[in-house]
Amino acid sequence: MDPFANLSPLDHRYAVEDPAQFARLSQYLSEAAYLRYQLAVEVALVKGLVKMGIAPAAAAEDIERAAQLVTPAEVAAEEEKTHHNIRALVNCLQRRVSESHRPFIHWSATSMDILDTARALQYRDATRELIAPALGELEQCWIEQTRRYAHTPQIGRTHGQHAVPVTFGFALAWYVQRLGDRMETILSAARRLRGKMAGAVGAYNAASLRVSDPQQLEAVVLGELGIKPALISTQIVPPEAVLDWAHGLVSTFGVLANFADDMRHLQRTEIGEVGEAFTAEQVGSSTMPHKRNPWNFEHVKSLWKEFLPRILTVYMDQISEHQRDLTNSASGRFLPEVAAGLVQAADRLTRFSRRLVVDETRMRANLERSANLFVAEPLYILLAAAGHPSAHEAVRRLTLSPQAGKESLAELALADEELAPYLQRLSATERELLHQPEQYRGLAVQKAQDIAAHWAGQLQQWQSTGWGLSA
Amino acid sequence: MDPFANLSPLDHRYAVEDPAQFARLSQYLSEAAYLRYQLAVEVALVKGLVKMGIAPAAAAEDIERAAQLVTPAEVAAEEEKTHHNIRALVNCLQRRVSESHRPFIHWSATSMDILDTARALQYRDATRELIAPALGELEQCWIEQTRRYAHTPQIGRTHGQHAVPVTFGFALAWYVQRLGDRMETILSAARRLRGKMAGAVGAYNAASLRVSDPQQLEAVVLGELGIKPALISTQIVPPEAVLDWAHGLVSTFGVLANFADDMRHLQRTEIGEVGEAFTAEQVGSSTMPHKRNPWNFEHVKSLWKEFLPRILTVYMDQISEHQRDLTNSASGRFLPEVAAGLVQAADRLTRFSRRLVVDETRMRANLERSANLFVAEPLYILLAAAGHPSAHEAVRRLTLSPQAGKESLAELALADEELAPYLQRLSATERELLHQPEQYRGLAVQKAQDIAAHWAGQLQQWQSTGWGLSA
Amino acid sequence: MDPFANLSPLDHRYAVEDPAQFARLSQYLSEAAYLRYQLAVEVALVKGLVKMGIAPAAAAEDIERAAQLVTPAEVAAEEEKTHHNIRALVNCLQRRVSESHRPFIHWSATSMDILDTARALQYRDATRELIAPALGELEQCWIEQTRRYAHTPQIGRTHGQHAVPVTFGFALAWYVQRLGDRMETILSAARRLRGKMAGAVGAYNAASLRVSDPQQLEAVVLGELGIKPALISTQIVPPEAVLDWAHGLVSTFGVLANFADDMRHLQRTEIGEVGEAFTAEQVGSSTMPHKRNPWNFEHVKSLWKEFLPRILTVYMDQISEHQRDLTNSASGRFLPEVAAGLVQAADRLTRFSRRLVVDETRMRANLERSANLFVAEPLYILLAAAGHPSAHEAVRRLTLSPQAGKESLAELALADEELAPYLQRLSATERELLHQPEQYRGLAVQKAQDIAAHWAGQLQQWQSTGWGLSA
Amino acid sequence: MDPFANLSPLDHRYAVEDPAQFARLSQYLSEAAYLRYQLAVEVALVKGLVKMGIAPAAAAEDIERAAQLVTPAEVAAEEEKTHHNIRALVNCLQRRVSESHRPFIHWSATSMDILDTARALQYRDATRELIAPALGELEQCWIEQTRRYAHTPQIGRTHGQHAVPVTFGFALAWYVQRLGDRMETILSAARRLRGKMAGAVGAYNAASLRVSDPQQLEAVVLGELGIKPALISTQIVPPEAVLDWAHGLVSTFGVLANFADDMRHLQRTEIGEVGEAFTAEQVGSSTMPHKRNPWNFEHVKSLWKEFLPRILTVYMDQISEHQRDLTNSASGRFLPEVAAGLVQAADRLTRFSRRLVVDETRMRANLERSANLFVAEPLYILLAAAGHPSAHEAVRRLTLSPQAGKESLAELALADEELAPYLQRLSATERELLHQPEQYRGLAVQKAQDIAAHWAGQLQQWQSTGWGLSA
Repeated sequence: MDPFANLSPLDHRYAVEDPAQFARLSQYLSEAAYLRYQLAVEVALVKGLVKMGIAPAAAAEDIERAAQLVTPAEVAAEEEKTHHNIRALVNCLQRRVSESHRPFIHWSATSMDILDTARALQYRDATRELIAPALGELEQCWIEQTRRYAHTPQIGRTHGQHAVPVTFGFALAWYVQRLGDRMETILSAARRLRGKMAGAVGAYNAASLRVSDPQQLEAVVLGELGIKPALISTQIVPPEAVLDWAHGLVSTFGVLANFADDMRHLQRTEIGEVGEAFTAEQVGSSTMPHKRNPWNFEHVKSLWKEFLPRILTVYMDQISEHQRDLTNSASGRFLPEVAAGLVQAADRLTRFSRRLVVDETRMRANLERSANLFVAEPLYILLAAAGHPSAHEAVRRLTLSPQAGKESLAELALADEELAPYLQRLSATERELLHQPEQYRGLAVQKAQDIAAHWAGQLQQWQSTGWGLSA
Repeated sequence: MDPFANLSPLDHRYAVEDPAQFARLSQYLSEAAYLRYQLAVEVALVKGLVKMGIAPAAAAEDIERAAQLVTPAEVAAEEEKTHHNIRALVNCLQRRVSESHRPFIHWSATSMDILDTARALQYRDATRELIAPALGELEQCWIEQTRRYAHTPQIGRTHGQHAVPVTFGFALAWYVQRLGDRMETILSAARRLRGKMAGAVGAYNAASLRVSDPQQLEAVVLGELGIKPALISTQIVPPEAVLDWAHGLVSTFGVLANFADDMRHLQRTEIGEVGEAFTAEQVGSSTMPHKRNPWNFEHVKSLWKEFLPRILTVYMDQISEHQRDLTNSASGRFLPEVAAGLVQAADRLTRFSRRLVVDETRMRANLERSANLFVAEPLYILLAAAGHPSAHEAVRRLTLSPQAGKESLAELALADEELAPYLQRLSATERELLHQPEQYRGLAVQKAQDIAAHWAGQLQQWQSTGWGLSA
Repeated sequence: MDPFANLSPLDHRYAVEDPAQFARLSQYLSEAAYLRYQLAVEVALVKGLVKMGIAPAAAAEDIERAAQLVTPAEVAAEEEKTHHNIRALVNCLQRRVSESHRPFIHWSATSMDILDTARALQYRDATRELIAPALGELEQCWIEQTRRYAHTPQIGRTHGQHAVPVTFGFALAWYVQRLGDRMETILSAARRLRGKMAGAVGAYNAASLRVSDPQQLEAVVLGELGIKPALISTQIVPPEAVLDWAHGLVSTFGVLANFADDMRHLQRTEIGEVGEAFTAEQVGSSTMPHKRNPWNFEHVKSLWKEFLPRILTVYMDQISEHQRDLTNSASGRFLPEVAAGLVQAADRLTRFSRRLVVDETRMRANLERSANLFVAEPLYILLAAAGHPSAHEAVRRLTLSPQAGKESLAELALADEELAPYLQRLSATERELLHQPEQYRGLAVQKAQDIAAHWAGQLQQWQSTGWGLSA
Repeated sequence: MDPFANLSPLDHRYAVEDPAQFARLSQYLSEAAYLRYQLAVEVALVKGLVKMGIAPAAAAEDIERAAQLVTPAEVAAEEEKTHHNIRALVNCLQRRVSESHRPFIHWSATSMDILDTARALQYRDATRELIAPALGELEQCWIEQTRRYAHTPQIGRTHGQHAVPVTFGFALAWYVQRLGDRMETILSAARRLRGKMAGAVGAYNAASLRVSDPQQLEAVVLGELGIKPALISTQIVPPEAVLDWAHGLVSTFGVLANFADDMRHLQRTEIGEVGEAFTAEQVGSSTMPHKRNPWNFEHVKSLWKEFLPRILTVYMDQISEHQRDLTNSASGRFLPEVAAGLVQAADRLTRFSRRLVVDETRMRANLERSANLFVAEPLYILLAAAGHPSAHEAVRRLTLSPQAGKESLAELALADEELAPYLQRLSATERELLHQPEQYRGLAVQKAQDIAAHWAGQLQQWQSTGWGLSA
């Protein structure tokens, strides 16, 4: 099959651009991967039946061997006859085991026992092997940049307007915090993914026929797979566990998109504080040879716009009639794409965050051009602290003077009859600060370092415990 | 490449299930298809330059020949160097033409001249070759079923409750109308798709250097492709044209999903009026051998839940800063999937609408079980027409009687001292109808036939004019 | 003001329908409520300044008294001049306190210190006083119904088709579980709501001028309000805390909508297992006097469709440029509506769940009509357990027999040469069950009781601890 | 009722801010307005019955007089008994007319005949009286600004990077075009809104009892109201007409938000090309007295984020089971809010577009700072036109030179051995342009003027024909 014949950019353009990444994603998120998990559940079921004394030990070995031979193509071919995917899978297994073991395959299970459990396993493993590592690498990179630029002065911006100073490391720490928090959300949701082995309507009707404690059978089977049963199922596991996980994914995407947005704006020609690294061969525009566009940051925001709305599908899939209708089936098959998109976005951001070109000179220059104005804040605060009853209003009026911006508001205040007396009451340090407004950055440095330290520690702890997700 | 390694169900499961359908979709909606349209635009540009006297005729022939040789893989390889897809495409073309013709390739164009125009062509052709035919076939099928069942009595249902009778053909005509109307919406939007050849910021800066009337050049180039220019562009064509088309697609999906929903409810065990055809080999459930599930109708509703939210992406992509940012780029690449999903849903509905199993006996039985009750409406209307000042309330009270439902409300009314005199004033025909409530179906038959006729005519007219979309 | 002149149904139709409910909602979710919380934060700030030795104790008393006098109308009038809501609020406070205390009002704070903290308090209190109680009452009601109907046989339905039996209590327990789980999600998110007192860009620039440890000031101020500071803020608190809370709300709405959907389908004329209570005066249809529609259940689903998409706004509001832009401001003002909608839906469901009319006879009859068929599952499972190598296929073939459904599949199997020998191997109990298929309900009763007990305990624990949310 | 007790910002904050605007919105979009339209439909029905000879002329006069007396509060009180809004309305009418006329009120109609028709009228009138005028005023304002700034040079920006020059008028013309196009979409959708008078399930069952041609009755009734019947209805009008209208609204919102986004970015401190007018009393920040924020533009973008997702509700409401379920009822009641939000956003943009502060000096300065670089495009185009076989690559290499940006690329090219000969082939005019790159703006001026003229004409035509919407 020609990848360019594919319909999804995930399977053509992005697959071709980075084949190694595609291979990693495919290992957990493709149809082949899903089938592999389904087979694992069928095998675990028979192992459970052995442990419960329903099936002979040989049956488990027989089916485990068979499961390794079943291919996606074979199941697809069988499904053309059965029009039922799990029955097709079972048929493919059964024809590979001895006749006496056949009855134990899929015994007492309904398709959704296999499918919902397989999805839970797949999403858990994708979290551990793909998502958490990709996000962790990005977090690590941002932590390093936060530390590197902890002291680099930058003007704080609110409403796109110069506000008061921070440091670039402080600005990055905001993202370190938010990404770390989202990782927690995803990991916690992944830990709450649940499986089931409760039969057609969730009441263990079939298993009850021969098993005295079918909930034990369920626990044993799922224990084989390292996952817990839902407290109650119908034909399906309660859909909220997967929904919470999906919420974790798309809300993480929002943090990535916010970062990307900031970077592309800081790269605006007039601002020029950061830039994407550019190779010597790279073309910025097919007609404007001088262009250096922040296209990777734009790309991440664009992916966010593609994948964010898909959360709606997962919310809509909460509704399933009675003990289940199938209207969540096709839609559920597209969810792995969201995970793939998030990993791609994270990988790209890591790559370009690492090579981020930071123009510290420009940063400082931008800050300085507003120094005459943003001194308004410390001026007002100190005037108030010195007892001026309407300091904000007084300074606001100063900013309307024709000299505002050209001269420092601090100078204008000193020359102001009404304000000067209050300024006399300030300490020397305070007065000095009014003349070195770039020092007016509060705890920016400390916060940057604290946040970096906090999440560096958390990352290490997660990594040393396999993200708290059983393998 | 193994299709089962793909990430999107469109490229694995559904591609494998119906390879012929996939091939058709791929011909217009894949990455390879998109590239083909881009090449066509580049060729048209040089032809335009020839017509405007800028380039020699041989240049157009040279590049047209070259364009036939360029492959997606080659462009992808070149893009690894340029990091720019259109520059890569241009390079692939240039290296295949004589040195003297190279300057004319892409001359004065910006990438988006090529890309936006290619998308417009692709979506127009996908509409003409894939979407309209698929929907047209479904519409044709529904028209036939509307006619076949125009006289088949069915109880009308509102709120899931028996209301008053219609016919099954009338119920289907509702969908014939809505689908026809949506086809009009899609076709009209497809006709309003626009291209551009207006340069980097839409002001024809580059072309103006040598061309006295660059808008004429644009019109000529796009004329080659059978498409019109936007009234004004920036780097991009106004995004609303594609948005309207996407709105047409997802709102059509809503009609399909509504139909599917109705059918699956009519297939409920207790209702049993329709059913999906089932093959002898088919399995309904992996554990419940007796199940016959409406899974194809469920599938269509599920696809709707997947693709509906994606319209949000297109709305969000309306926002592009100044003369354009790139945050609509990756997201825009996923839009063809919505078209593919819609065609798949339509094809599936056509297949299962054709083979719809209609149980007319059950339909009539369901209707009859409520006849004693739904006579309430004609009874009230006739009582009112006969001058009863509060007929609705009088009949509503009758329905609270313990006999209501067991006996006909008409009988109860006749036995009612207060109501009987009014009933005496009715005509014989009217009184008779109260005793043959299944005849109480108004214009259901006529409406079904009229709607079928209307859209049969429209379909024919569309088909005979290539859907009003130039080839 | 005339409520019918309002634009939102929350403020006209639904407000008029249930004035007591509207008053409760208004107490926490209106503009007046929001202002009350803003005032509380301003007061807490001055108290904090007192504790830190910046302001005299009298200042706190002075402003606390002033805050009780400020009205929404007064602030709105002042805002007409300032075009800035918090400055207007501060002005209203300042003009009510002695000149010497004025400088301490809002000292070192930025508007968002007040606004984001006020929102966190408001949402926490709305959770504790409105949302959790409303959901808790619904949960309690469902727990009772689960227990009441734990043994009531009902046919399980998958795909709208009869599957195998459960009990009605089991079907309800599914919702008890999912609602309980969502309550946990909401409560946990409410506990993670955070405030800030970190100044214009989050770096404590202003407070640092006079306070040696501004983070301590922040902790003290927020401690007054019973809330914690975010680990890092910019001008705003990280938006994910409110997003998680909103996710809790809309995903809870999904559970309510799913329940409502089930109930309205169970009320379908042909099914008739449940019904909404109807008063003697009530009108079902303006033209069909006999109609009894499930309109309250329909209403809840409709509210879900209204409020679900609004989560998208909260996701989009994750993106705020640099240290903040204001594009989340207007949109954020609409979020309380989602909480109001959820409480309304919960209240309505509680009311109608309590008065749910359950037709146990009809439930049993519906179940029995499929008994001949659904015995297919135990038959196949037991045949398999008895060693039949392709039991599912064998039984599936039986279901294709013309007698299937008319006679029990168990009888057909007994009469089948190939199958009969396997049936001989079954125990007496097992064989008996094949002839009493309505007993085939697995652990339905036990599960219903266990889930009810689990959540009854959890509810009690929550209620005794104020939902774990500080007052 | 205290407006600050309301839950929706539309009914508290925004209502209080601009009471005149609220009154206008309320006149068409409130609950009271909706009721007024319902009454109008009931009156029209009786007039139709008169024309068809079913009712006496006096009945129509009687009910018309009664309709003027019915109040929302009275209907709400009656609904408390009936639990049915239209029956309540009918009761309120009936009790005000003579006994002999009562039967004609609502005769043969179902509630949705009244409600769907009332909505169509309401949305049509809101379009004509509120939406089109508000958008028309904004369009007019933008047309004027387009003309005023048609010649004002501005650097074109793509990806936030300086591209090549346009004029500010050209940049505005882009919005004139897109808004004009959206107005067309809204108006066209409003013209396609439809009513119905087809009874409980759309088959005219009731009317058929006494009326020989019930479709004529429907046409006559709707003709009274100036609206056409749907080609086929069930209990409801096909939902796509309202959906198309809603699509028009939210896609227009996207254009407004895009404009607002551009303006707020052009107001960034570093760019400073435009600004919101600021009053002398106005406060930009509660802590930073120097701030001048683009908060009105931010507000519009924020409203867009609030109202865009609501289109999902309308798409979801396409699905209604069989001849209708009620799950579109509550959700449909919120749609007028989207219209209100759009009008508010348009009014605000008109106000601030009119008073837009444009700093033409800064615009020119920003443009000039890139002149050395953006000459790359004309340089490459002219080199290509002069026969250079790889002109783009040659110029791209020039931009990597350390002198690039400091000196003009044109100078560097002239000094380049390989390129100089090609430059000799250019005309004097062409060479000159390379040294006056700010002249490199193509057809920007002409396009701005053409687009302004086109839409000025269209606006005039619309206004002179009442927007093509019957009153």
